[in-house]
Amino acid sequence: MKVVIVGGVAGGMSAATRLRRLDETAEIIVLEQGPYVSFANCGLPYYLSGEIQDRADLIVQTPAKLKQRFNIDVRVNQRVTAVVPDQHQLSVQVAGQTVTESYDKLILAPGAVPVVPDLPGLATAPNVSVLRNIPDLDRLMAKLSTTGARTVTLVGGGFISLEMAEALRRRGLAVTVVEQATHVLPPLDEEMAADIQHTLTQQGVRVITGQAVASVRDNGRTLVLADETQVQTDQIVLAVGVRPATDFLATSGIHLGLRGGIEVDETYQTSAPDVYAVGDAIVVRNQVSGHPALISLASPANRQGRQVADNLIGLPHHNRGSVGTAIVRVFDTAAAMTGLNEAALQAQQLPYKAVHYRGSDHADYFPGAQSLLLKLLFNPQSGELYGAQAVGHGVDKRIDVLATAIKGHLTVADLPELELSYAPPFGSAKDPVNLVGEMAQNIMDGLSDNRQWHELKAAEVAGRQLLDVRNPTELAAGRFPMAINIPLDQLRDRLSELDPQQPYIVSCQSGHRSYVAERILKQHGFDVVNLDGGFALYQTVRPDEVLDD
Amino acid sequence: MKVVIVGGVAGGMSAATRLRRLDETAEIIVLEQGPYVSFANCGLPYYLSGEIQDRADLIVQTPAKLKQRFNIDVRVNQRVTAVVPDQHQLSVQVAGQTVTESYDKLILAPGAVPVVPDLPGLATAPNVSVLRNIPDLDRLMAKLSTTGARTVTLVGGGFISLEMAEALRRRGLAVTVVEQATHVLPPLDEEMAADIQHTLTQQGVRVITGQAVASVRDNGRTLVLADETQVQTDQIVLAVGVRPATDFLATSGIHLGLRGGIEVDETYQTSAPDVYAVGDAIVVRNQVSGHPALISLASPANRQGRQVADNLIGLPHHNRGSVGTAIVRVFDTAAAMTGLNEAALQAQQLPYKAVHYRGSDHADYFPGAQSLLLKLLFNPQSGELYGAQAVGHGVDKRIDVLATAIKGHLTVADLPELELSYAPPFGSAKDPVNLVGEMAQNIMDGLSDNRQWHELKAAEVAGRQLLDVRNPTELAAGRFPMAINIPLDQLRDRLSELDPQQPYIVSCQSGHRSYVAERILKQHGFDVVNLDGGFALYQTVRPDEVLDD
Repeated sequence: MKVVIVGGVAGGMSAATRLRRLDETAEIIVLEQGPYVSFANCGLPYYLSGEIQDRADLIVQTPAKLKQRFNIDVRVNQRVTAVVPDQHQLSVQVAGQTVTESYDKLILAPGAVPVVPDLPGLATAPNVSVLRNIPDLDRLMAKLSTTGARTVTLVGGGFISLEMAEALRRRGLAVTVVEQATHVLPPLDEEMAADIQHTLTQQGVRVITGQAVASVRDNGRTLVLADETQVQTDQIVLAVGVRPATDFLATSGIHLGLRGGIEVDETYQTSAPDVYAVGDAIVVRNQVSGHPALISLASPANRQGRQVADNLIGLPHHNRGSVGTAIVRVFDTAAAMTGLNEAALQAQQLPYKAVHYRGSDHADYFPGAQSLLLKLLFNPQSGELYGAQAVGHGVDKRIDVLATAIKGHLTVADLPELELSYAPPFGSAKDPVNLVGEMAQNIMDGLSDNRQWHELKAAEVAGRQLLDVRNPTELAAGRFPMAINIPLDQLRDRLSELDPQQPYIVSCQSGHRSYVAERILKQHGFDVVNLDGGFALYQTVRPDEVLDD
Repeated sequence: MKVVIVGGVAGGMSAATRLRRLDETAEIIVLEQGPYVSFANCGLPYYLSGEIQDRADLIVQTPAKLKQRFNIDVRVNQRVTAVVPDQHQLSVQVAGQTVTESYDKLILAPGAVPVVPDLPGLATAPNVSVLRNIPDLDRLMAKLSTTGARTVTLVGGGFISLEMAEALRRRGLAVTVVEQATHVLPPLDEEMAADIQHTLTQQGVRVITGQAVASVRDNGRTLVLADETQVQTDQIVLAVGVRPATDFLATSGIHLGLRGGIEVDETYQTSAPDVYAVGDAIVVRNQVSGHPALISLASPANRQGRQVADNLIGLPHHNRGSVGTAIVRVFDTAAAMTGLNEAALQAQQLPYKAVHYRGSDHADYFPGAQSLLLKLLFNPQSGELYGAQAVGHGVDKRIDVLATAIKGHLTVADLPELELSYAPPFGSAKDPVNLVGEMAQNIMDGLSDNRQWHELKAAEVAGRQLLDVRNPTELAAGRFPMAINIPLDQLRDRLSELDPQQPYIVSCQSGHRSYVAERILKQHGFDVVNLDGGFALYQTVRPDEVLDD
């Protein structure tokens, strides 16, 4: 069996080495268009920042080592330009020549390429970079040092963009991030991204949101935004996302779907016989929504590479879809998410509720506790877990637990049951994951109901009186304009000050004390809901709408 | 409804506050025999060490605050001496007097007390301490400072003992740990505890294992061990475990089970009408084994306290059993576990396989990667997950993910599917949890078979030749006495040096390269198995049985 694999990074190389472990006799050829295989894609920003100091650390494997250990024929700088499934053949560009390669089985793992927006003036600007591979990195670093650039503008504000923003700040550059969505990190919801945006600003990154770039002028030295703001810059870095690198399949007849992604069945087979595909280039099923999705992440790519090899030798390990877990460090904080976000749930008109926990990453009484904000999205009828987001410290652990719960089809009722490792340096007797589970369970049990920060105004317009149950000292440091105040610990004694005919929405700092107030009021017959996330969350996302006198 | 709760720490106080949130009208009385409620039990060793500097940080709640916020009548220094279910009454000792208290519903949350072994000379020794609550802590600290003790011996080597060993070392004391099992941290298997034992020794803790204390002499200044070794000590601290604090129930007729634990149904009801029980004092079902178990941990206690209140008002949240997740920091390393260990699986004669992963807590190429050893135990027929253990860095996250998987009845096949958050500072594209899943799946698929470190000698006796596939430079730093050597990268070329009739067991440093070798040899018809965990694991647990010339 002669197996040709197109692409030698995550999915392709996982397929190649797994296939060798399963089959000593197969002829395995890997065609990689770049000069490196199996490089540390996710490490590139950290070499740019100087945290990874040795460029060799980015190169995990070499063709020679792969030949020696796995008897794999790795050919770099070979660009596949066409696939002809009927003839089981590929066209390959090698050193300017086009040659033909045959295969018995073909695995396509071409990955994704950065999206280059079609903006006037962009194509001719000499100072435009992307960062997807080591040559990109080398070019960008050479350009930064030879041109003496002092300002860099990142177009796009997603995960990779923010990693680069940090890296470039660490190199002492002035950095601007332009994101056309309402907030950076669009996979997160707005209130979760707000903390990250605050961190960026504190670290000297200029953040412009809600603004698309309209054109590029002055040979790339000026970006003109939709509102005609002009951003001066020495260097432009495009980080507006990636798309499947499938242009070479245009003539192949292989079915392409969402944004040019390769359509595959659960054994990774494409529409063409003997042609399989894995990694960033394939259309997967989002496990939560059931919808087609493109997920450009290392973890699914590696898994798919392994599984396609399994399928080639008849081991039935099928693609069960993806939940899309991702994380990004942003200076001294981090953001992570898994599953669907609130925006996606709204777009798909799925019934959902959200709960937020704000607290510490480990026991408060143990030194070094740091802030953690965790959001859970769930179906309030079935208890299905839709997704989770976290910002701050200890976010990887909580999102990993919730990603495991979602992948395993656990429900809201399972989260309070989870026994997570607890000693004061590591967590709390009730982990934040347990707590969001309890909060969600309270909603499902009808004990509590909440409104989100973006629903507060509508609730007030609809006639709900906002009741803040914090203490006067807390109010002095920041408060809602329209709220009345009764501190929680006085509530039982001051119930007569409230109108039983008046619907209320209660708030405190984080949403926890107001839940206690909600329970007291509910049992006294009041129509009351809780402002989820409390004043702190609202203030983070809408600082201009609160008073801090 | 008048509800009396016996015990005001984790389970009792969770029950009290939850019940108030569910029922504003109930009369709730908490009887706590000590002077403090809701204190940070798990924080005591860290105040002893000086890491927690303010004693007030250990006291999470006070009776006054609980009265104000939750309208709970908390009575400290009230010791319940008897329960008379037929009369719905308790006898309570208050300031030397015995009074009677009635209840409509009674929740027992008395917790556990340290086991005091019945050793000659112990009862009369004046220098013996335990550490279970704040008065214990105060007494121990006073004793250490007034007596000028310089040496402390901890009897028992479990989780609490090792936290105290570290705390006492940080105070500059000479510390000895005496554990009668073959290794410290008996909930872990021997090879996992070996790393911890090494850390303790490096940090100047004297560790004596496999030795029970036989008697105490010289007014507590000498411990005599089973082999007649004498250990001189200024202070003795007992840390041999806890037992349910249920002596006061002797006359109640309430059914007690395993080691005096209170037997409850899944709604936490005891054998007596209107009497419920939660926390360390109850017998739970181990979710994995199905057997009765005593689990003294904060997380289940808090959950049970909440759930018993739910059941009291008719919310059907049932006790689904426990998996028993625990973690301990030991100086600059940590150990964590969940579910059943190998010793328990052997004792219960369950079919199991183990796999070990040794590597880094995050991407190797990112600075600061630290060592992690992870063990997974599973049923090789069904794929059921039995348990996991981890030692090193990043252990809390991996054990939390696996505890979630076990709690959710996920199987081996689900672990490679988990999408865990990956960026180089946080993890690896394939997380160690994915990797142990792949290793286990390979065994289930018949692609690989392994032997554990403790099975190596038997395998050699049975005629398997040990083949080490590491490089000569690695062998020079330590090797098996009886192994032959062919480096992995030469194996395909040197197959003729091996005897096709000879069964082999292959080994490398961690077990990963030897798995590749196993696959090569299997495909060439050899009878071969892999030494799980490799040389490094064997050397850790049996350093005297390897050569390091």
